[in-house]
Amino acid sequence: MGTGDCSPGRRGLTMGAALPLALTLGDPAGIGPQLAVEAWRRLRQPGEGTFFWVGDPRLVEDAVPVTRIREPEEAGGVFASSLPVLPVFCEAEVIPGQPDSRNAAATITSIRLAVGYALAGRVGGVVTNPIAKHILAAAGFPYPGHTEFLAALCDRPGEEIMMLVSPQLRVVPVTVHVALRRALDTLTTDRIVSVAETANAALKRDFGIAAPRLAIAGLNPHAGEHGMMGREEGTIIQPAIDRLRAQGIDCQGPLPPDTMFSVNARPNYDVAICMYHDQALIPLKTLDMAEGVNVTLGLPIIRTSPDHGTAFDIAGPVTDTCRADVSSLLAAIRLASEMSAYREGKG
Amino acid sequence: MGTGDCSPGRRGLTMGAALPLALTLGDPAGIGPQLAVEAWRRLRQPGEGTFFWVGDPRLVEDAVPVTRIREPEEAGGVFASSLPVLPVFCEAEVIPGQPDSRNAAATITSIRLAVGYALAGRVGGVVTNPIAKHILAAAGFPYPGHTEFLAALCDRPGEEIMMLVSPQLRVVPVTVHVALRRALDTLTTDRIVSVAETANAALKRDFGIAAPRLAIAGLNPHAGEHGMMGREEGTIIQPAIDRLRAQGIDCQGPLPPDTMFSVNARPNYDVAICMYHDQALIPLKTLDMAEGVNVTLGLPIIRTSPDHGTAFDIAGPVTDTCRADVSSLLAAIRLASEMSAYREGKG
Repeated sequence: MGTGDCSPGRRGLTMGAALPLALTLGDPAGIGPQLAVEAWRRLRQPGEGTFFWVGDPRLVEDAVPVTRIREPEEAGGVFASSLPVLPVFCEAEVIPGQPDSRNAAATITSIRLAVGYALAGRVGGVVTNPIAKHILAAAGFPYPGHTEFLAALCDRPGEEIMMLVSPQLRVVPVTVHVALRRALDTLTTDRIVSVAETANAALKRDFGIAAPRLAIAGLNPHAGEHGMMGREEGTIIQPAIDRLRAQGIDCQGPLPPDTMFSVNARPNYDVAICMYHDQALIPLKTLDMAEGVNVTLGLPIIRTSPDHGTAFDIAGPVTDTCRADVSSLLAAIRLASEMSAYREGKG
Repeated sequence: MGTGDCSPGRRGLTMGAALPLALTLGDPAGIGPQLAVEAWRRLRQPGEGTFFWVGDPRLVEDAVPVTRIREPEEAGGVFASSLPVLPVFCEAEVIPGQPDSRNAAATITSIRLAVGYALAGRVGGVVTNPIAKHILAAAGFPYPGHTEFLAALCDRPGEEIMMLVSPQLRVVPVTVHVALRRALDTLTTDRIVSVAETANAALKRDFGIAAPRLAIAGLNPHAGEHGMMGREEGTIIQPAIDRLRAQGIDCQGPLPPDTMFSVNARPNYDVAICMYHDQALIPLKTLDMAEGVNVTLGLPIIRTSPDHGTAFDIAGPVTDTCRADVSSLLAAIRLASEMSAYREGKG
């Protein structure tokens, strides 16, 4: 990160990954189909981030040349001239902006297929288009979100860890989608160690960083200022740092949370391990709203996703101009591609 | 803030304030004397932010022309050609980088004098150089910090409110220097209303904003997501917003904390009212570490200060090149000057 560039996909790697990526359908009434088309237009020429869409070819055939493929291995040969689509058909007519729980089955099938190919080593990674939890829940989907479903499909329930990557920053929150009070109640030394170990291993294997530098955030203002503004730094966080260092992991902290994301501090580490959701997400989104990528660590497969939702309010037909910003999806595809190349030893 | 410019001092106002500002001594062994000299060099020509230093003239006379003044009213006439100094002498020899509690008396006297002139309407405002709490405490100073002392001198103990201003953002934390858990325990509707009212009044009177737009932050991830990740948004924050709106104050919220500071969101409000220290300070320092200004609201006087400490480690003689960044002090002086001009009706 000394270069100020945290997104491996930006380092000019263009042909590293031998395996294509699987891009899922997401909610077909959201911006997913438009984004898939737009991403293909942007990526076909440079040849970076070859992917196929696991979706309904009827939704995109009016906009761009499409090749219906049967196997992931066919994607690479056609990608420069057409969008490869591995067909998963929607049951009900898709009307942009009007989600329909009858199409939840296609959304879920697309994810199952993509993860299956990844577990089998036939795709380099899975990039997921956004889903609408309430639509899937109405169809009986029992998972609180995308990531939990992926962890279950990988037989690693509870092991998923979220990393957010933007051009200027990588962050991993130790506690995620819980109330702030509950985050304080559930923060433990074991959890910090476990999350930091996973992040460290992923940076080595999938980001090409031989000796990752971890910045461990404090919890309280000024990292507690010697106990005057809170004691968790001494009782919970410092012991985690001690254990990580005993393993040879390069980590500094507990750092005062307000200054650790400043322009002078960011070059000093490769990832910030944060104690709660907003401590991680505020600096990331304050710096880079459009290009953030959500990366799931702790699973055997590579998975990235754009850091936005289904955006039903601006979804339109694929033949219309795409009103959604494709930057985050492009960044997600490029990052998965480079992670895959590193993992295959070609990065 | 639609212009992306939150610091009134940057809007080109150069001659608005009729009254000079009083810049305090701070800890004489810190970077304060060097910064006072450097600020004068930068500001004498444009004539923006005329100030005098309430300090020891012996510390600066070797570096720049100095005029010892007896009354604040003499500062304006000499400022273009010399640094006006209202003398407060240090008891012990000042050695840069080696604070001495024998000089705490001079530090405190300087603050007392400056505040006295401000209360008497003879200076436009007070700009404070950094102090070292442990040095003052060793000399018997009974206040936890600068701001509490100022509030006591103004006979408004407990009414001080901190606003941080940078070129891109204004933030006011409702809870400040307490442990995060204690911040959760002490957050009340009354306190949010009181802080927001003070911020609203200050933006009208001292920042020239006729109808301030307040952004009220949520506390939990995604502002609680309809109670699924915390309930304080409904039980504490929304009632505050309702009461503020009933007074005719323009406020939106509770906003998801992670997205409210993004580049697209920032132009939609004039100040962010934040629930805890780091929720306010992380976005501010992530965006602008060097030019943040600390403004004390809720007191009858205008008071600003640079957003850094005494920096004993880089303090040197005033005749040496200043290793400290003067940006924050310059921004503090310019902001106090423009606030004073608005308050005097000349902004």
